[in-house]
Amino acid sequence: VIGRDVIEKYLDSLAKPRGSLGRLERIAARLAEIQGTLAPITKPRRVVLFAADHGVVEAGVTAWPSSVTELMIATILAGRAASSVLANVSNTELRLVDVGTRGQELDADLHLYRRAIVRVGTANLALEPAMTVADFDKAWRVGKEEACAAIGQGCRLLAAGDMGIGNTTPSACIAMLLADLPCELAVGPGAGADAAVMARKRLVVSGSVARALPMLTHEPTAAIASVAGLEIVATAGFYAAAAQAGITIVLDGFISAAAALITERLVPGSTRRMIAGHVSSESGHAAILAKLGLEPVLDWRMRLGEGTGALIAMPLLDAAAALLADMATLEDLGVGRCD
Amino acid sequence: VIGRDVIEKYLDSLAKPRGSLGRLERIAARLAEIQGTLAPITKPRRVVLFAADHGVVEAGVTAWPSSVTELMIATILAGRAASSVLANVSNTELRLVDVGTRGQELDADLHLYRRAIVRVGTANLALEPAMTVADFDKAWRVGKEEACAAIGQGCRLLAAGDMGIGNTTPSACIAMLLADLPCELAVGPGAGADAAVMARKRLVVSGSVARALPMLTHEPTAAIASVAGLEIVATAGFYAAAAQAGITIVLDGFISAAAALITERLVPGSTRRMIAGHVSSESGHAAILAKLGLEPVLDWRMRLGEGTGALIAMPLLDAAAALLADMATLEDLGVGRCD
Repeated sequence: VIGRDVIEKYLDSLAKPRGSLGRLERIAARLAEIQGTLAPITKPRRVVLFAADHGVVEAGVTAWPSSVTELMIATILAGRAASSVLANVSNTELRLVDVGTRGQELDADLHLYRRAIVRVGTANLALEPAMTVADFDKAWRVGKEEACAAIGQGCRLLAAGDMGIGNTTPSACIAMLLADLPCELAVGPGAGADAAVMARKRLVVSGSVARALPMLTHEPTAAIASVAGLEIVATAGFYAAAAQAGITIVLDGFISAAAALITERLVPGSTRRMIAGHVSSESGHAAILAKLGLEPVLDWRMRLGEGTGALIAMPLLDAAAALLADMATLEDLGVGRCD
Repeated sequence: VIGRDVIEKYLDSLAKPRGSLGRLERIAARLAEIQGTLAPITKPRRVVLFAADHGVVEAGVTAWPSSVTELMIATILAGRAASSVLANVSNTELRLVDVGTRGQELDADLHLYRRAIVRVGTANLALEPAMTVADFDKAWRVGKEEACAAIGQGCRLLAAGDMGIGNTTPSACIAMLLADLPCELAVGPGAGADAAVMARKRLVVSGSVARALPMLTHEPTAAIASVAGLEIVATAGFYAAAAQAGITIVLDGFISAAAALITERLVPGSTRRMIAGHVSSESGHAAILAKLGLEPVLDWRMRLGEGTGALIAMPLLDAAAALLADMATLEDLGVGRCD
C-alpha cells in the first residue's frame, strides 16, 4: 500500500510541467490511492444495472408510467439503450438484474440478464413501508452475489446503474434520511416532472422521511427499508461487497449516490473504494457527493441514470491509468524540473 | 446536409428523457452538424504534432530551455510522452512533423515521423520578425500536405498538437493580434513562469504586437508571420486543408486555438468544421474559444499541449457518435414522450 505523498511525488516526476494534466492527474491519483499502487488497473470491468418497480408511482410522483421500466429493460438487452451503447463503446461488460419489476421474464442470454425478483415492486412508500427488513436483506444479498460473481470472473472495476420508473423518489428520501439534505434540495424533477408533480413528490418524500426518521438510530435497516427501492438496496449490497473485496467502484448518478449512502451507513469506510463518475443535474446529487467527500469526474448535466454517468467516465479512467503506467519521467530524459 | 432543427428533433426522439444526456447530446449535435449527417463518424483519426523551436526563448520568456523540445520529440516517438499514451489508449494514430527545431534528425518510422524543416527555429520576435512570408508559406504548405495525406489514407477526423518550448509567447501575440485580447489575458504562465518571467513575457508580447498591428489590414500574412511560430503556422495550414476537405477537426489547447485564429482569418468559415477538445488553464484560451464561438468538450485545467487536450476528448466523441448511431427511439418502443 502506498500513501498520497508517494503518488503526488510520482505524478510530479513525469515528463510534463507540474500539474499540467489538471483533473486527469487527480483521477490518476484517486485510482492509485484506491488500489494502493502506482499501476492501477481499470479493466476488465462490468456495469450491473439493477431494475425494479416502485409502488409510489401510484402517488403521482413521475411523468412516466411504470410500464416504461419493462420496455427499457428490453431495449437495454437489445443493445439499443443509452447504457448498452456506452458500455459497448467503452469496452465494459453490461448485465441487467431484475430484482423486482412488474414485467415478464425476458428471453435473453444468461450472462446479460438475471431475474432475481425479491418482490414485485415496492409498496407505496407514501402510505406504508416500501419493503420489509427481510426484503431489504434479500435485495442486498442479490447485489452482493453480483459483485462476487463479477470479481470471480476477473473484473477489476465495477459499476452499477438503475432502471426503475419512480426511483428518484426513494432516492430523495434516502438523501434526506442519511445525508440530512433539506427536502427542496433532495427532491428534483427526475426523468421529468411539472410543478404539480414536484409538489406531490415533495409532500410524499417529506412525509415518508418523517415516519422513518425516529427508527434510524436503533433500527437503521428498517428505517432505510421503509423508504428505499429494491434496485437501490441491491446496488448498496453490490457496492458493499465490492468495497470489502478491495475492488474499485465507479458511481453513476443520483440513485447510485443514494445507494452509496446506504453502503457507507451500514459498512463504514466503503466510500474509500469509490470514484464518482459524474455529477448530474438532479439537485441532490452534488450535495450527496459532497457528503461522501467525492469529486466527480464529469459535470455534464446528465440525468439519465442506467449507468450512463459511470460509463461515460470509463475511457477517462483508462486514460488516467495509462499515464501512470506508460509515461516517461523527467529523470528518464535526463532533465531537471524547471517549473 | 441536415439542419440543426432536424438534429435536435432526432435527439429528442431517442429513448431517454429529453436532454437527459446533457453535454453529451450537445457534442453529438455538433458532430452531426459538422458532418451534415445523423450518423457522424469519428474514426479512423490522426493527431499530427508539429514541432519547432522559438528564437524568443533567448528573451527569457519561459522556465524551460529549448533543448527540451528535442528530448520531448524523442520521448513522443518512443511512445512515452503524455500524447503518445493518450493516442494509444484512444485508438488515434499519432505522427510528429518537425518543421523547425534545432534538434538532430531522429531515426524513427516514416509513418510516425517526418522532418520538414522550414528553418531552424524562428528569429527572436522580441527583436525582429519571427519569420518571413516565404517561411510562413512553406510552413503552411507542410501542414496542408499532412492534412491531405491523412485524408488520403482514410482519416475522417483530424487533430493537431504542438511541441516547442516557448510557443505560448507567439500564441499570445496571435491572440492579441487576431482576437483583440488584452495583454494581461493573452499572456499566461505556459509551461511554467515566475513573476519575473511573466513580466518579461508581457513586455515582449505587447512590443511585438505593437509592431505587427499596423501591417494587419494590408499585409495580414506578414503581420502574423512576424509574431508566429513555425509549428503554429503549419497547424493553421493543416486546419485549413482539413476544413476545405470537409473533415472534422478537434482543437487542442492555447497554441492550437491561436492556429485556428490564423486559419479563420485566412480561410474564413473554417471554424465551422471545428470542435474544441478542451479549455485549458492558460488564461487566453477560453477567450479565444469564445471569439471562435466554440464550446469546449472538457474544462479540466489541463495545460500540457502536445495534442493531449484533443486526445482526451476522443473517446467522448466516440460515445456521442455511438448514441446517434445505435440508440432506439421512443417510437421503436411504442411509447409517447411524457416529459
